[in-house]
Amino acid sequence: MPKYVYAFAEGNKDLKDLLGGKGANLAEMAGMGLPVPPGFIVSTEACRVYLNTGAVPAELSSQVDVHLAALEKEMGKPLGAPEDPLLVAVRSGSKFSMPGMMETVLDVGLNDSSVIGLAKTSNDERFAWDSYRRLIQMFGKTVLGIDGEHFDKVLEAAKAARGSKSDLDLSTADLQQIVASYKGVVREQVGREFPQDPREQLDLAINAVFHSWNSPRARLYRRREHIPDDLGTAVNVMAMVFGNMGSDSGSGVAFTRNPATGERGVYGDYLQNAQGEDVVAGIRNTMPLAQLETLDAAAYRRLLEIMETLEQRYSDMCDIEFTIERGRLWMLQTRVGKRTAAAAFVVACQLVDEGLIDMDEALRRVAGDQLVQLMFPRFDAGAAAKVLCTGMNASPGAATGAAVFDSVTAVERAAKGEKVILVRRETNPEDLKGMIAAQGILTSHGGRTSHAAVVARGMGTTCVCGAEALHVDVPNKTATAPDGTVVNEGDMISIDGDTGEVFLGEVPVVPSSVVEYFEGTADPEAADAGDLLRAVHRIMSHADVKRRLLVRANADTGEDAARARRFGAQGIGLCRTEHMFLGDRRATVERLVVATTDEERQSALAELLPLQRGDFIEIFTEMAGQAVTIRLLDPPLHEFLPNLTDLTVKVALSREHGKPVEKDEMLLAAVRRLHEENPMLGLRGVRLGIAIKGLFGMQVRAIAQAAAEVRKRGLDVHPQIMIPLVGSVRELRLVAEETSGVLAEEAAREGVELGATIGTMIELPRAALTAGHIAEDAQFFSFGTNDLTQTTWGFSRDDVEGAFFSQYMEHGIFEASPFQTIDRHGVGQLVKIAAKAGREVRPDLELGVCGEHGGDPASVHFFHEAGLDYVSCSPFRVPVARLEAGRAAVEVASGSGTA
Amino acid sequence: MPKYVYAFAEGNKDLKDLLGGKGANLAEMAGMGLPVPPGFIVSTEACRVYLNTGAVPAELSSQVDVHLAALEKEMGKPLGAPEDPLLVAVRSGSKFSMPGMMETVLDVGLNDSSVIGLAKTSNDERFAWDSYRRLIQMFGKTVLGIDGEHFDKVLEAAKAARGSKSDLDLSTADLQQIVASYKGVVREQVGREFPQDPREQLDLAINAVFHSWNSPRARLYRRREHIPDDLGTAVNVMAMVFGNMGSDSGSGVAFTRNPATGERGVYGDYLQNAQGEDVVAGIRNTMPLAQLETLDAAAYRRLLEIMETLEQRYSDMCDIEFTIERGRLWMLQTRVGKRTAAAAFVVACQLVDEGLIDMDEALRRVAGDQLVQLMFPRFDAGAAAKVLCTGMNASPGAATGAAVFDSVTAVERAAKGEKVILVRRETNPEDLKGMIAAQGILTSHGGRTSHAAVVARGMGTTCVCGAEALHVDVPNKTATAPDGTVVNEGDMISIDGDTGEVFLGEVPVVPSSVVEYFEGTADPEAADAGDLLRAVHRIMSHADVKRRLLVRANADTGEDAARARRFGAQGIGLCRTEHMFLGDRRATVERLVVATTDEERQSALAELLPLQRGDFIEIFTEMAGQAVTIRLLDPPLHEFLPNLTDLTVKVALSREHGKPVEKDEMLLAAVRRLHEENPMLGLRGVRLGIAIKGLFGMQVRAIAQAAAEVRKRGLDVHPQIMIPLVGSVRELRLVAEETSGVLAEEAAREGVELGATIGTMIELPRAALTAGHIAEDAQFFSFGTNDLTQTTWGFSRDDVEGAFFSQYMEHGIFEASPFQTIDRHGVGQLVKIAAKAGREVRPDLELGVCGEHGGDPASVHFFHEAGLDYVSCSPFRVPVARLEAGRAAVEVASGSGTA
Repeated sequence: MPKYVYAFAEGNKDLKDLLGGKGANLAEMAGMGLPVPPGFIVSTEACRVYLNTGAVPAELSSQVDVHLAALEKEMGKPLGAPEDPLLVAVRSGSKFSMPGMMETVLDVGLNDSSVIGLAKTSNDERFAWDSYRRLIQMFGKTVLGIDGEHFDKVLEAAKAARGSKSDLDLSTADLQQIVASYKGVVREQVGREFPQDPREQLDLAINAVFHSWNSPRARLYRRREHIPDDLGTAVNVMAMVFGNMGSDSGSGVAFTRNPATGERGVYGDYLQNAQGEDVVAGIRNTMPLAQLETLDAAAYRRLLEIMETLEQRYSDMCDIEFTIERGRLWMLQTRVGKRTAAAAFVVACQLVDEGLIDMDEALRRVAGDQLVQLMFPRFDAGAAAKVLCTGMNASPGAATGAAVFDSVTAVERAAKGEKVILVRRETNPEDLKGMIAAQGILTSHGGRTSHAAVVARGMGTTCVCGAEALHVDVPNKTATAPDGTVVNEGDMISIDGDTGEVFLGEVPVVPSSVVEYFEGTADPEAADAGDLLRAVHRIMSHADVKRRLLVRANADTGEDAARARRFGAQGIGLCRTEHMFLGDRRATVERLVVATTDEERQSALAELLPLQRGDFIEIFTEMAGQAVTIRLLDPPLHEFLPNLTDLTVKVALSREHGKPVEKDEMLLAAVRRLHEENPMLGLRGVRLGIAIKGLFGMQVRAIAQAAAEVRKRGLDVHPQIMIPLVGSVRELRLVAEETSGVLAEEAAREGVELGATIGTMIELPRAALTAGHIAEDAQFFSFGTNDLTQTTWGFSRDDVEGAFFSQYMEHGIFEASPFQTIDRHGVGQLVKIAAKAGREVRPDLELGVCGEHGGDPASVHFFHEAGLDYVSCSPFRVPVARLEAGRAAVEVASGSGTA
Repeated sequence: MPKYVYAFAEGNKDLKDLLGGKGANLAEMAGMGLPVPPGFIVSTEACRVYLNTGAVPAELSSQVDVHLAALEKEMGKPLGAPEDPLLVAVRSGSKFSMPGMMETVLDVGLNDSSVIGLAKTSNDERFAWDSYRRLIQMFGKTVLGIDGEHFDKVLEAAKAARGSKSDLDLSTADLQQIVASYKGVVREQVGREFPQDPREQLDLAINAVFHSWNSPRARLYRRREHIPDDLGTAVNVMAMVFGNMGSDSGSGVAFTRNPATGERGVYGDYLQNAQGEDVVAGIRNTMPLAQLETLDAAAYRRLLEIMETLEQRYSDMCDIEFTIERGRLWMLQTRVGKRTAAAAFVVACQLVDEGLIDMDEALRRVAGDQLVQLMFPRFDAGAAAKVLCTGMNASPGAATGAAVFDSVTAVERAAKGEKVILVRRETNPEDLKGMIAAQGILTSHGGRTSHAAVVARGMGTTCVCGAEALHVDVPNKTATAPDGTVVNEGDMISIDGDTGEVFLGEVPVVPSSVVEYFEGTADPEAADAGDLLRAVHRIMSHADVKRRLLVRANADTGEDAARARRFGAQGIGLCRTEHMFLGDRRATVERLVVATTDEERQSALAELLPLQRGDFIEIFTEMAGQAVTIRLLDPPLHEFLPNLTDLTVKVALSREHGKPVEKDEMLLAAVRRLHEENPMLGLRGVRLGIAIKGLFGMQVRAIAQAAAEVRKRGLDVHPQIMIPLVGSVRELRLVAEETSGVLAEEAAREGVELGATIGTMIELPRAALTAGHIAEDAQFFSFGTNDLTQTTWGFSRDDVEGAFFSQYMEHGIFEASPFQTIDRHGVGQLVKIAAKAGREVRPDLELGVCGEHGGDPASVHFFHEAGLDYVSCSPFRVPVARLEAGRAAVEVASGSGTA
């Protein structure tokens, strides 16, 4: 017979699939002999049967019988017994936390008789009737599906009759009257009596919890969080304990260490004469947990012992919920505690020092996203600032600026050098220019997948969204805080993208000490370095020891290269030469682009050659001893010319005014000639090299001459020449032959070995699919996962800021933006296909990645698994990549990888 | 010891890899006992050794010794013997024909002594010295690498001295003087004497042929034709025979049937007292082959016998080259003869009737491209028209119109309803508008891969390119023919895309009888139907019996559907609903697109619903009993709005003139909102369906209501609802759930079963890579190979007309345009991956293709191999697809497929 019901004693913390998270942890505590109210768990398997067949399994009832009997025996009282009733809490609990999404029914077991027994045994008549009132209300809504409004009306009427606004003013008689009315509501709404049979109550409550798995809000939540729909929930049935039985009772929540800083020592809140809900609801002021010692020293000591025991068992910081019923301590929940980024690093190192975990495990316990948070500047914690409201922490950082309420104003003010925060109810693609211009974005509507949030994260702009308490009035350009404070256009505000807080005025910002450490200006071994820097240093060093992936940087200038090196980069994985075509070189580049004869073209190229050579000399010098991968010109040429629409309007208006247009018309002709409907899919990359004679040759010559020059100065250089956007080995071969020729020519002329290699980007699906052929002519592959994502999915990066992307996040079509975290199933599959095929043909083929994904934590793990040699990312992301590369190595080694 | 030299007797026609095409066929004829001048073949293997090592294999010399000795023995005279010399021809011959790309040396064996012997035995002193003169010249250029100019100068000087322009006027003495001078040239240019040793001549000639395999022009030719570089060439050494030994000698070329019509009976040209080169060169007028009977009845009869024998052996029409030396017939070459499209069909059926091949083989002997040629209208063969010149047949068809010399004029005249032919030296992307406006395109420069040719084929426009004899003067708007005829702007000209001919004036066009047959207006079984229609009918019928692939059509209207059905379509594979959003519905669609509220949107959709329903009723009625696959709206919405640049200019100018701009500004705001940098990669396909509430729902409702209506009329309908541009099963699932809901609703309301299925396009790499997941929610896949090609390669179809595409063709990067013929290695691999993964999940998954490739011959074979159920193409292409589907089936069955 399948087993559907488990005693706490039968479970443990590793059975979350079967017993849910809450149940597994309760079982663990029970097994440890900790004071957990007795109970049992109906498994997720039973739920799955219910979901598939519409009914609980036939065997469930008899199994509940057995476990209920054991519970009654242990508690010494039967469920809902008239004299001295056992009451139970019926709670959901799935493998993954889905806070508030599913149902709970408390006080199951109360009925017209047992309420009287409870009044007697609790010696608190009002408490008993209030509990009964609550049961009918909760059961009515949850189990019987009655609209809560009906119960609310009764309650309001009773309070009105008494002339009070608070439940607390209701007398026992009032509550008895309410119970009678509530029973009437049930009768009217569902045509049956409120069930008096305690066992019937229990069975219906279990069904209701199962049923709530598929409530619309739970389904929506799961879709967004990508929790599978077929897991189901367990049901925890546990004897009720009461923290609201007088001053020797109470409830609390606690962390075993400070979750903000990681500091050792208990940390929590306690509320006397209250149930757990009251602590969380924040209706009354709680006291610091330490004060419990003065109220009930024995319970306090016992609690500290238990917290210590739990840390030992979980080898981690835990959080707990507990209740003291008339001096007796009961543990209601525990789990590994959530913590801030700083605490994560500090606690991990503490645990190593305490012998609970090793350094590998410490590395596993922190994450690149946490490191990123620590690298943003933060508001000065010491500065006093008025919190206007709190929204969702949608994109990290600290931003301060003048409030503006529309995109146009944002752009105008920003153009004048002013810092602005764009404040909107919500954003849409038309707000994009303002979003780009702003230091930060604040919205009163929309969640973490809203347009504002998605775009801000994509741009790395600080964002607080869904600050519902703020009333944003765009036409009148005001935002009103709950306390009535009005923010007008131009008023300074500050937003904290880590906490979601919105402040009035300009809050001072302090730079990140972690960045100072990476920059080498803060010494982690100094006496005053602080726990955080010490911990970061220790864990980063361990990551560097463990990782197999090299980390390079994307850098286009000597300055970038130097910074990257300080941050730990082991070479440059992507040096974009198009950046060398801008600034004061624009005029020459324009001549190159609009050239119609070979002569004009050659003359422009000849002017660019020494300039490019200078750029490369600078970069090679900064990166001496390390590889520098240089991508030949990639972007469509129209990017170097004025915008078609703007120029067309200019010419039309000039003509209208009889102004000379000849020069602009010539330029316009070139712009038109180069105009493409879809430039991303047009004349760029290797196609430029083939179509424009001499362009790539000039670049290769500049690289060769720069390398020779730097070698002559006694420095080691490793130029890697990278051909972009190759789709066929035939394209690569044409360009590689020309490149080899130029390299040989220059090496002979300069009389030095250049040691240059020639390779290609793999950034088109076809390149990945034919990588075996391409490897015949490429000494290295660098995966351009930005473009590869664009073509594999068939949408452009512009769309991240466009119409459908945030809707896709909302609908759960993307688990994460595929431009941020690599899409393993699609793009990732191409990476693996190409890596395998390439290495089969050329076993020493060097493999790297130079898309934005190179600095994304989840993606770094993927690239480790895929067997790449290095990742390359922006200099700022280098530490994140180093950390995650280390984590990937220890995770794969311990078999906990995500492949 | 490796064998490098083969006697003719050792070879046969199937050894082309080893002996080259020419050698294998000579061996075949020798083996049949036909009169082939004795000789031997140095194999391609020897050439490969030469190419890899730079020297002929050591064993070659002794093997040549053996075969040369046998040849001398058979001929009864030693090579270059003073008294009666054996002379040999040394000719290249690779597996694939590379006409004119490699070298030939004739008359090897002549020297200062043997020339005298030859004079005696031939009894023609002038002939002997002229032969010697030719040998030194040919040998000097080919073997010794001397610039031909040096020899030309000598010859010109001799002619000038004689006051003549023709070689024929040179006397024996002149020729002797020239031989002396030529030997001087050799001495001066290469510092050695012209080799007198006949054997040395032979060895050097063999080496020279090997060497010519890698001449720049041969390499270029191979790259363009995609012939592998490592095949090498064989060398045929054959005793010289002379057709120029008097009136009882001569040379001819012939086909065993009429290669233009397929008519039975010999067909060829004969030239008395001439070598083969003279026949081909066309210097003197040839006589019809039949006249040979009057000159030499015995030789003629023998030739007819041989032609009959060859047809029996090759089971096909052959072409031959022969020489009669003093009454003795020698066969110099044979091969399967090239023929016109019409002849291919007619001959194939004749051969079946003659018992030489079966119908499967007849089907293999014709090709879809030939059928296409037969379906174009042609110039009336009976009309007298003056041929101005002949260029390359770059894109088929017959076009007539006024000559114009620039794009602007082409557009202007076309806008007035005039037919124009765009005449250019060559075209570039700026000519595109004119190319689109023109009936035909004529260029004087550039080959079949030139911009003009590639674009014209892409657009289906008739094109003749590279008509080098025509002098095109664009500034003066004239084109001058070799005979001095001047074509001015506006003069009527006609171009034949099949023959490359350019005519003066308007040549009458006759419709294709083959199209009349497909349309059902010409009866192939009528007495006067003609051989061609009978043959086409017979072969098409056999293809229909043999093919496994169904052929559907892409059709968007009832009219298209009806035509497709007449052409044999078995359903509609792609009905594009965007075409239903144009015309007088544009205003409503514009309202839909610019709508900013749900209400506005719903009102526009409600207006469109009955219109769409009407469209579907028409199509379902025409296609009763067959599947109709309807694609929900795919293109980006901005396509339904005015152009951004145009509208911006309009608004700017209106404002300048103080005109009201409010309405245009509102429209402009919408255009800006919908503007995308890369619309091909933007908000389109399923993304529209998700982003625009109600759009797909309206379309599905229209389909459901139309299907119900047509079912009620007693007709059978099979609607297939196709969701475009899906990249993830999650997108499909969202839309499919909505679609199923609407279908169920309408089915219930109408009280009929709709029998509709829901499927998706596979047109993104990610869809192909995750096809297993997508198949969970799709009842069919239709490969959208146009978009799949765009994203797999990362270039757009616009580029076909753009800057680099023709260069890519030129460089041989594409074997064929990937938008025309499916790219097997890239796009094809994705098709196979998706087909396999999809069928694993859903074995009855229907698989089809609806890109342009569905009507391309090579692609149809690929889709057959890939296991698809159907191809869908434009109605006009349906017969081609039927034919090729049949061919693919018999080829795969016989193991001669190209997989």
